[in-house]
Amino acid sequence: MFAVTILGNNSAVPTNERYPTSQVVTYHDRLFMIDCGEGTQMQIARYKIRRSKIDHIFISHLHGDHYFGLIGLINSLSLIGRVNPLYIYGSPQLKEIIDLQLNCAATVLNFKIIFTPLLPESTGILLEGKDMRVHYFNTQHRIPCFGFLFEEIKNKRKILPDKARESGIPAAYFSQLQQGKDCINKEGELIKNELVTEPPTPARKYAYCADTLYDEQLIPHIYQSDLVYHETTYLQDQLHRATQRFHSTTLQAATIALKANVKKLIIGHFSSKYEDINSFEEECKTIFPNTELAVQGATFCI
Amino acid sequence: MFAVTILGNNSAVPTNERYPTSQVVTYHDRLFMIDCGEGTQMQIARYKIRRSKIDHIFISHLHGDHYFGLIGLINSLSLIGRVNPLYIYGSPQLKEIIDLQLNCAATVLNFKIIFTPLLPESTGILLEGKDMRVHYFNTQHRIPCFGFLFEEIKNKRKILPDKARESGIPAAYFSQLQQGKDCINKEGELIKNELVTEPPTPARKYAYCADTLYDEQLIPHIYQSDLVYHETTYLQDQLHRATQRFHSTTLQAATIALKANVKKLIIGHFSSKYEDINSFEEECKTIFPNTELAVQGATFCI
Repeated sequence: MFAVTILGNNSAVPTNERYPTSQVVTYHDRLFMIDCGEGTQMQIARYKIRRSKIDHIFISHLHGDHYFGLIGLINSLSLIGRVNPLYIYGSPQLKEIIDLQLNCAATVLNFKIIFTPLLPESTGILLEGKDMRVHYFNTQHRIPCFGFLFEEIKNKRKILPDKARESGIPAAYFSQLQQGKDCINKEGELIKNELVTEPPTPARKYAYCADTLYDEQLIPHIYQSDLVYHETTYLQDQLHRATQRFHSTTLQAATIALKANVKKLIIGHFSSKYEDINSFEEECKTIFPNTELAVQGATFCI
Repeated sequence: MFAVTILGNNSAVPTNERYPTSQVVTYHDRLFMIDCGEGTQMQIARYKIRRSKIDHIFISHLHGDHYFGLIGLINSLSLIGRVNPLYIYGSPQLKEIIDLQLNCAATVLNFKIIFTPLLPESTGILLEGKDMRVHYFNTQHRIPCFGFLFEEIKNKRKILPDKARESGIPAAYFSQLQQGKDCINKEGELIKNELVTEPPTPARKYAYCADTLYDEQLIPHIYQSDLVYHETTYLQDQLHRATQRFHSTTLQAATIALKANVKKLIIGHFSSKYEDINSFEEECKTIFPNTELAVQGATFCI
């Protein structure tokens, strides 16, 4: 399973119904949190997210609607007995904020926080496992802000078991085949790899574009992703206000999705001035038809 | 109107249904907030509290379940256009936490924060207006912690209009009568004050005891209050755990209410290990019958 679940989809001033930004990416049995606005831990309880499975938390930037819930979540994880280290990625001052708040409460956590500072203007790979890696990249916002790309690693060729058997290749050589190497069969003949394997299935990608102005520099980072989240704080008629506040409109998000040739777009970070958010989807669809609202509690498979 | 509305009643780990501690005291058209756990601004929206009327926020101590919602509320008040100063009372480091978080976000508030530090072991009057004063006092907790007493000021004697008229006292002298002074009537006779007035109605008092061990030193501070909030993190069978964690049980809260000769007790700060909180009320009532649960959204008139 590779999917993202929406915990909060609102911008700065939360309403009773729409909580500030947070998402959880599930990759098989591991959970990765992106942003953690106020009330995220209540949303975790509401949507029955297995909080103990969250080992990595990525904070895009230090506007409160993206991280004010983090200290509460950390506190609660300790109180419910977490012992595994928690990896947090964010602007350097985030560590200072966490430490100050823990010190004031004389709190000693039951687990270690392993903090990776994201330096302004930096970009690269944050995390790489055997089957998944996480990249980060800059977005254009009022303060340093980062997007994240979750990319499956699929570098093993798929063995065609019937063909491999027919060619007389012993099972002991299968891992060589997966790596693309040719093999010698039981009769001593060289068997070309492409006769008994096929290319890896394409690696799936989910991109989270955080808060940002319309910015075509995002395109190479998110190009051909299966799913992209892009903020749409405002409808198109508020283009001027969006630009002033370093945010995007519906048509801007849809244009980025179109130009980046992605499969599907989800939109969120709605301004609390909108009670009804359906127009966001309608406007985006005029440019990029495969758009959906990042509704709270919804899970999008990647 | 003099009343308190419960916004959150849970202890450290919030559940989906029970939010961490926050209350709003209404005195006529002014609102005073006590504590501000995570999600308080969502509860304000849920229970339709007029957030613009909150001018004073009292933070009992720096455990997160009592203040993690404050920075989000401050941020939102600025975004929705507050310009009036906001008075905040709390441990000195609270100011440092607020400033650090505002600085990291490059946020300049539209209003001034006027911060009063509550120094460990201090006690006294925090705020005194013409009709209400707020005292603070120490409670026994793991870190410095304060309770608050909201006390009406009723020092004007009530004029008996019929008697005053019969005695021939001109209306111009009524404010002197309210102050307890004798008056000369139209015929030049001295009229004793107690003939034409009666004593002020008793001043009403609401006491908030924050987080605390069982502590009889609280009693003089809350004596004969009309309404007292006392925490009951645990039922009585968890007395040992309560004491270890500097919290109180049901019977301890009820005993304090009884010994302080108060009119009514409300209880809260329930541990999240309890799904059903009705037993809290039942246990307290065995010692202090006029006990009620601090249910979220409930308003208690004082």
